[in-house]
Formats: sequence, C-alpha cells, structure tokens
Amino acid sequence: MRLQRSASKRAAQASTCSAGRQKVHGVVGATPYHCAMPSATPIIALPEALAGVIYGPDGLVPAIIQEQGTGDVLMLGWMNEESLRRTLQTGRTWFWSRSRGEYWCKGETSGDRQWVRRAYFDCDGDTLLFVVEQEGRGACHTGAHSCFYRPLGRSS
Amino acid sequence: MRLQRSASKRAAQASTCSAGRQKVHGVVGATPYHCAMPSATPIIALPEALAGVIYGPDGLVPAIIQEQGTGDVLMLGWMNEESLRRTLQTGRTWFWSRSRGEYWCKGETSGDRQWVRRAYFDCDGDTLLFVVEQEGRGACHTGAHSCFYRPLGRSS
Repeated sequence: MRLQRSASKRAAQASTCSAGRQKVHGVVGATPYHCAMPSATPIIALPEALAGVIYGPDGLVPAIIQEQGTGDVLMLGWMNEESLRRTLQTGRTWFWSRSRGEYWCKGETSGDRQWVRRAYFDCDGDTLLFVVEQEGRGACHTGAHSCFYRPLGRSS
Repeated sequence: MRLQRSASKRAAQASTCSAGRQKVHGVVGATPYHCAMPSATPIIALPEALAGVIYGPDGLVPAIIQEQGTGDVLMLGWMNEESLRRTLQTGRTWFWSRSRGEYWCKGETSGDRQWVRRAYFDCDGDTLLFVVEQEGRGACHTGAHSCFYRPLGRSS
C-alpha cells in the first residue's frame, strides 16, 4: 500500500514538475516527441554555512538523500569536503566510498542520477540533507526505489 | 511556503491518526475533554534483521528519524546495539550520545517524545530509518520542528 502511494505520488510529481527540467523536442521517424529531462540546478553555497559543517575524525559527514515530492528517504551516503563541493557545484550527488576509497557520482554508471534541488545542514552541523529528483529506477543498487526496503520487524 | 505545507500536513495527520493512540476522556471543571494521546507500539524484531545490522568501528550506526504523515526528515542520531534494543522494545527512540557518552531517550526531559511506528535497515545494513510520531514542539533542541532548518545555500 505504502509503495503504491509512493508510486502515485511520483507520477503526480513527474507530471507537474517544471523547475530544474530542460525541455527537449525532436522527431524520431515520423513521431514528434516532447519530454522534460532533469537538468542540474547547482547550489550557490553560503560561506558561513560551509564553515559550519563539522566532519568526523575520518573527514566524513553523513548525507541523507530524500526524494523531492514523495518525501521518501532514499539512501545515506558519506561526503568529505571535496565531495560536498562537487555536489553543490554540479547539482549531482557526489559521495566518498568508504569501502573503495574513492569518489563516486551517483548514477554515473547506472543512469540512476540524483539531481539536487535543496541542501541543508543540521543544528549541530554534523549531518547533511539533500532533497533530490531521482532519475531512473531508484537510489538502491539492488534496483529498489529506496535503500530502506527491509523492515527490522513488525509493530506489536 | 514549505513550512506552511508541513504544518497543514501535520494538522491533517493529527486529526486522522488513530493507530498507536490511546483515547483519554475526562472532565476539567465543567468541561469534558476527549483527546488521543500517543502510545507506544513496540517493534517485534526479526532476529535475522537484527543480525544484519552492521555497526561501525565505534559500535555505532546512524539512525535517520522521519516523521510519519509529513515525511519530514527530523534528525539523525546514533545507536549502539543496546539503544537499538531499547528503541524496538519500548517504541520510543533511544540514542547513544557521542558527546556525553551516555544513553538518552528522546523527549524524556523536554517532552518532545518520538513514538516509533515503523523501523527499517538499509541494503548494506549500516544505516537505520525510523518513522515516528513526533510529540511536542518538534525534534530539534532549538525548538525547530526539524534539525534540518538551515540551507547550505540557494539554488542557482
């Protein structure tokens, strides 16, 4: 039920969204097409906000990724100062992979890109929140829409 | 605008929510009152799910707290095995304070309690998500509804 509601919210969102979308028109064979491709809306960072971000001893800060429109929490990734800079500057999410020890731009290989629409830091400065437009199948490498598809248990 | 929408969603949620609420009736002076107080709905954990939670080298796992109904991301706290156990068992959020080195139950002092309604772990097992009913003013110690009230910048 919850997934159905999310899917219907996503459909409504896709049909009404206009900010951060680039209109594309063309013809394939005899068929004209009109579609709205997501486009980047980089964030112009406030210097005092950037200075307020507190990184852990490993130089990383957790970044929660939430879907615009549905409000679904999609995933949590880790950012260092450079991946945060890239994220704001490009309008795409860039993380630091703790297991591989390298930067990765979400969806660069899979096509499941995340287009940043809003960015926040919390009261303590030690957690980030990005509201994104999720392209493709979803955020999870398993193919699920959200990485949080497994319940820890059931309500009593 | 966003905050207004959230407030109206919260009002709608409060008027329609029934699960996890305890009906209270009484009389103050000549005035009868009927209100629905939040009540705990502990989570009966799946042993295989608990075994799949991966704690960091410090024994902690990040826990995202999202509000039921509005979908607002309220805060991120840290849990160890014991605080996760307490959270599921009591239906209230229990965290490990990294700065104070002690357990804390959200809202125990302030009254801004969180009543757990759903609990998830992510595909990698190293992040938790709790969907809660937020009581009182909100989740943030500043009095804000969400800890993520500060933008990192503005969209270009």
